[in-house]
Amino acid sequence: MKAEIISIGTEVLLGHIVNTNASYISRKCAELGIDVYYHSTVGDNESRIRAALKRGALRSDIIFTTGGLGPTVDDITLSTVSKTTDIRLVHNKEIAYEIKKYFTRRHLPMQKEILRQARIPQGSKWFKNNVGTAPGVIIPHEKRLIICLPGPPSELQPIMEKNIIPYLKKYLPVKSIIQSKSIKLTGLPEARVNAKVKDLLRLSGHTTVGIYTRLGEVELKITSKERTRDKALRNIGKIERTIRNRLSRFIYGVDNETLEEVTGKMLQKSRCILSVAESCTGGLVAHRLTNVSGSSKYFEAGIIAYNNDIKISQLWVSPKILKHHGAVSKRCALSMARNIKRITSTDIGIGLTGIAGPKGATKNKPVGLVYIALSSFRKETVKGFFFHGKREAIKFLASQAALDLLRKHLLKLK
Amino acid sequence: MKAEIISIGTEVLLGHIVNTNASYISRKCAELGIDVYYHSTVGDNESRIRAALKRGALRSDIIFTTGGLGPTVDDITLSTVSKTTDIRLVHNKEIAYEIKKYFTRRHLPMQKEILRQARIPQGSKWFKNNVGTAPGVIIPHEKRLIICLPGPPSELQPIMEKNIIPYLKKYLPVKSIIQSKSIKLTGLPEARVNAKVKDLLRLSGHTTVGIYTRLGEVELKITSKERTRDKALRNIGKIERTIRNRLSRFIYGVDNETLEEVTGKMLQKSRCILSVAESCTGGLVAHRLTNVSGSSKYFEAGIIAYNNDIKISQLWVSPKILKHHGAVSKRCALSMARNIKRITSTDIGIGLTGIAGPKGATKNKPVGLVYIALSSFRKETVKGFFFHGKREAIKFLASQAALDLLRKHLLKLK
Repeated sequence: MKAEIISIGTEVLLGHIVNTNASYISRKCAELGIDVYYHSTVGDNESRIRAALKRGALRSDIIFTTGGLGPTVDDITLSTVSKTTDIRLVHNKEIAYEIKKYFTRRHLPMQKEILRQARIPQGSKWFKNNVGTAPGVIIPHEKRLIICLPGPPSELQPIMEKNIIPYLKKYLPVKSIIQSKSIKLTGLPEARVNAKVKDLLRLSGHTTVGIYTRLGEVELKITSKERTRDKALRNIGKIERTIRNRLSRFIYGVDNETLEEVTGKMLQKSRCILSVAESCTGGLVAHRLTNVSGSSKYFEAGIIAYNNDIKISQLWVSPKILKHHGAVSKRCALSMARNIKRITSTDIGIGLTGIAGPKGATKNKPVGLVYIALSSFRKETVKGFFFHGKREAIKFLASQAALDLLRKHLLKLK
Repeated sequence: MKAEIISIGTEVLLGHIVNTNASYISRKCAELGIDVYYHSTVGDNESRIRAALKRGALRSDIIFTTGGLGPTVDDITLSTVSKTTDIRLVHNKEIAYEIKKYFTRRHLPMQKEILRQARIPQGSKWFKNNVGTAPGVIIPHEKRLIICLPGPPSELQPIMEKNIIPYLKKYLPVKSIIQSKSIKLTGLPEARVNAKVKDLLRLSGHTTVGIYTRLGEVELKITSKERTRDKALRNIGKIERTIRNRLSRFIYGVDNETLEEVTGKMLQKSRCILSVAESCTGGLVAHRLTNVSGSSKYFEAGIIAYNNDIKISQLWVSPKILKHHGAVSKRCALSMARNIKRITSTDIGIGLTGIAGPKGATKNKPVGLVYIALSSFRKETVKGFFFHGKREAIKFLASQAALDLLRKHLLKLK
């Protein structure tokens, strides 16, 4: 089964938007065993969209389109699909009802033209958009599927997960199955992970391993293509064990797990309550921890002390430490961790202090220098780090190191 | 002058890589006044690359290819260009010399096959890659240019900036110039912005207006294509004034400005020092404010009180308020704002409390309900909001509303 993705939108061609939809849909197709042979992007222009759809019909079994489903005159995806396939657009009452409900619920006035979004090709299947108003639409046409999805990833992805993938699973003939599993690592640079699994990255055939890098972490993705799910999972299991043997202490999770989620679960399991005292990260550690639903069970409080007075008054850091060692010092980080724990009566306190840059460096304290301390009822640790990158990258890397320090501490509690 | 971008690489079709090259090259083309009408991606497959190149030759004056310039047998961009254009590949001694130097300098052993990268189409122009070994190549062919660039953005972008853009500037006939300006709004949903500028969005010809939505904000991008920069800027100025007349109070900035940057500058200008007390946003407001370099000049401190005890002990919220009105209430938000200002001795305090979800809703307090208060030496405000979306979206929308409340407050101080 071959698929292609046609992204529609002048804003993509102008480079205003990075086309993340194409890579997202491609990943999902790979997981379903659907081969994606082409991505293409055209503007909001009828003749060019038509040409792309016609070309797609000649070479692919499934055509995904993204974008151009909005209510404005620029949004012409469905009308062009209609003209290309000779399937006329009809007003769908259920969609119209959902759109009206969307506006009523939000106490917003509704322009009549929004109801253009309720017009879909006759005989097509539609799926509700829980974030915006444009539904996802599947149009079966001459043994092919045309799948039209809204452009914003926040609208496209839920429809894809909830509706399109289950639909395609039923639609696809039973054949080889692709399974994959990602092993996520932090605390070791890509080059060093690479060196440790070089042999695995060269595997070819049924089971392969890919390496992907994101800021502060590395992902090893094991993929196996087999006739049965079980066989694929066995292949993956074997390679996963090899990876774990070699890199165990840097592995924090698998697949979609985030470091903040994993750490959160560990905190909850060990019944530890946490609070954080941040300086250079400016609230990012707390923000990441509280992105996890249910984090109020183990996250208590944060104090962001962005200058020395606040470090003294709110975090009880001794003026002597600030005078003799400076705010960016092991002593200060440790004092922040210890005191936030006391002040908020929690089990664990974390303190971070450093220079996020681009300004603020001194002769002995360059941009990127960060001290992170952890104080618990059992022990205290403090570590110095030196991160490279721009301000936001340094903040992120520091938050990543703090969460990893916490993870390693909780591992030992087990 | 029309251009298109052909991205070559199976890893892009598998979704392992997000194709940022296409948007990057598109932006640069727009700045040069070159229209990009198509992006396409094909795998490392000769017949599909040939078909894409042939299609490109029929519809574009400049064809960019990215990727497939590496030394392995999978890298077939140049050999396929050679076959498609009937221009044979020749060994280039200078490139070979640069490649050898690359390995000697790094004390790395060099496989002989690497020298495949020194074979380029006869009569083409090549540009040194300072990061990797694959040069950038421009192949003039039948009044068209085929420009082949390496796939990694860290290699592609320097060659583009240093060599390709200057080359194209000379190559292009003197003609129209494209200028654009983005007007950024917050606090008004896209549909309502749309309704206010409907006539402008329908403009066609030299000057056009596009509308783009991101979480919590809307961007109106004015683009003008003229023979001179001045004329284009005058056109843009005229439309900008119209937009400002209609939507002034929702406009926070232009082009790449962020709301946190704009608010930060206003704080600095008015010499106000800020601190924040966050509950549901869990540190995000402070995190955003401190993403701005120099924010320590106006941002003092944050307290994240993720439960009632901490609201009482650290933010002095009266237990009576919590008992009678609850933590998610106007009273509590106001008390948080007022007290953080007092506790940290700042000019302005902001307090946020709400339900980020998905859990935590009660009968009268649904997920998405957020109260935001501002307390300054002049006045106090508190507002209730009701946001839709997932936990992270609600957190972001609340932080956006808080920064906008602050912006509006500072506007009045002027």
